[in-house]
Amino acid sequence: MECASPFIEDEYISLSHGSGGLASSKLIESVFYAAFDNHILNQQADSAILAFEALEGSQQLAFTTDTYVVNPLFFPGGDIGQLAVCGTLNDLAMVGAKPLFLSAGFILEEGLAMRTLQQIVDSMALTARAHGVQIVTGDTKVVEKGAADQIYINTTGIGIKQVSHSISPKAIRCGDKVILTGDLGRHGMAVMCQREGLEFESQIQSDVACLYPAIATLLEQQIAIHCMRDLTRGGLGSVLNELSQSSAHSIKVNESEIPIHSEVRAATELLGLDPLYVANEGCCLIVVPEHEATHTLSLLKEVEVSAQARCIGTVLQTSSRPQVILHSIYGAERILPHLSGIQLPRIC
Amino acid sequence: MECASPFIEDEYISLSHGSGGLASSKLIESVFYAAFDNHILNQQADSAILAFEALEGSQQLAFTTDTYVVNPLFFPGGDIGQLAVCGTLNDLAMVGAKPLFLSAGFILEEGLAMRTLQQIVDSMALTARAHGVQIVTGDTKVVEKGAADQIYINTTGIGIKQVSHSISPKAIRCGDKVILTGDLGRHGMAVMCQREGLEFESQIQSDVACLYPAIATLLEQQIAIHCMRDLTRGGLGSVLNELSQSSAHSIKVNESEIPIHSEVRAATELLGLDPLYVANEGCCLIVVPEHEATHTLSLLKEVEVSAQARCIGTVLQTSSRPQVILHSIYGAERILPHLSGIQLPRIC
Repeated sequence: MECASPFIEDEYISLSHGSGGLASSKLIESVFYAAFDNHILNQQADSAILAFEALEGSQQLAFTTDTYVVNPLFFPGGDIGQLAVCGTLNDLAMVGAKPLFLSAGFILEEGLAMRTLQQIVDSMALTARAHGVQIVTGDTKVVEKGAADQIYINTTGIGIKQVSHSISPKAIRCGDKVILTGDLGRHGMAVMCQREGLEFESQIQSDVACLYPAIATLLEQQIAIHCMRDLTRGGLGSVLNELSQSSAHSIKVNESEIPIHSEVRAATELLGLDPLYVANEGCCLIVVPEHEATHTLSLLKEVEVSAQARCIGTVLQTSSRPQVILHSIYGAERILPHLSGIQLPRIC
Repeated sequence: MECASPFIEDEYISLSHGSGGLASSKLIESVFYAAFDNHILNQQADSAILAFEALEGSQQLAFTTDTYVVNPLFFPGGDIGQLAVCGTLNDLAMVGAKPLFLSAGFILEEGLAMRTLQQIVDSMALTARAHGVQIVTGDTKVVEKGAADQIYINTTGIGIKQVSHSISPKAIRCGDKVILTGDLGRHGMAVMCQREGLEFESQIQSDVACLYPAIATLLEQQIAIHCMRDLTRGGLGSVLNELSQSSAHSIKVNESEIPIHSEVRAATELLGLDPLYVANEGCCLIVVPEHEATHTLSLLKEVEVSAQARCIGTVLQTSSRPQVILHSIYGAERILPHLSGIQLPRIC
């Protein structure tokens, strides 16, 4: 028997409901999906795929939203503004859509320094421009001191899907290869080290970046991408579990192929965290048919954001109890669980 | 000489930057418009109007975002969920677009009662469904207790423009008639009375509602609407000033034609507020050519949400110093100023 749902008895929202783990998934399913129920939302993709009359032929739009509450606002390698643009562009990229337009909704805490706001807004503008995206509509609310923590930003994006087929966990097939585009945990650890005042020999830089240039190359070369997912909240471990559950396939990954910087490893050890569950913001999984894996890897390595790409695993047969199996560096195999609780609050 | 900008010297964000008055406008122009600068944003409409390759023929999308931070969450006549759906649908309607899709981004404070969340989400779902709109994508963040006030909701909407011409202040012409669809100030006063524990003989109900049914009737009958604006933050006085400035026309309105419920008037008097600047959430201005005014009014009166519609004023000649002139119930004329500061924080 499965564990009892961790939240049906929950009478109050806790930090783990925002963690990207099991508690998050269950909240989303039982409250949001249950109430808003429609077939587009039910696809549970990084972006909703919209087809409607005003679109030409078989064109489809991608539509996605994310709110950013990262603390601190500025961290090595980035800031909340850059994150708010990249994060939403990445959600569009993950369904094979070219990002076109963003909205920006701000909640400002009374007393926020105007200079801080200006810096963040400039960072958003710079990042959007660098990726050919326009911020076309916005909203600003100010709440009393103490009713927010400086600034929260929602960005919602519209993109145009570049392929007509569905890029989703449902398209995952037995034998598919799982490619990881970068090294794990840099965003989460950059934010945590900044927050906790931890210092290492070399500073950990967040990997926050827009993944679309890498994805665009694959789409141009007509790689038959089955599924993509960026490794944000909950990190690699949570994403692998989500893909495994949604596709009803087990997935086996080789620990020795998963790159983790030594500073990231040291920081996670110090904080008692598992780097396999720490968030990235410029790194994703790409699932492709086995015969396309080598070509995919060589294309990804040509693009800066995915230069470190490598194949980390394989999709196994359909299974009634789909699970994620980690082949450890010592040769043993263990299940990578879908964690329930929170590791790191407010890292995005 | 004009007054000096109220914020260039402002080093910190204050509540007036979110008020919908002059301080808001100046912040938006000098920080957001300056940084994000593009011709779509610069239209400064309630929704951005998007035209791009994937759309058929001359089709255009409307795209708009709003964050809702109303306090309290439940007020006579509505709640934050209903408001978050209606408010964004109204911004789409105001550019002549039929609302189709919404995203929903939640910031939840740790400790929020699950029952409260469920009630709000149910209210969003009910409202969206009533207007044929799907909530197709979402995001949930949880912040620590004290880092938000229970729940903030961003909704971002996509609609399809139903007419090819631009509905905007730039289309306003001398002689146009200004139509008001309902009575003033009910939303702002319903929220304030609830917050302050004020009681009147009959309870003031918020007017929160979706305006699209009224607008759809006008569009179907091919009324040549020049401009529309819903009376949210800053109320009628602020909206008239914005329209006057953007169109470079003065506007004259008759106080005797502006309906204000006696309870709303009493509440504003008690709180020292001017009802002309108090927000509605189910009421708008519609500017039409003089010869269409009578037909427009008769159509609006057929629809529940605009049954009280009446013509309140006239657009005057282009003017180098456009202003809003109120012809008072006593026959005198006075300028209705563009207020700088805040009347009511967190009413939407």
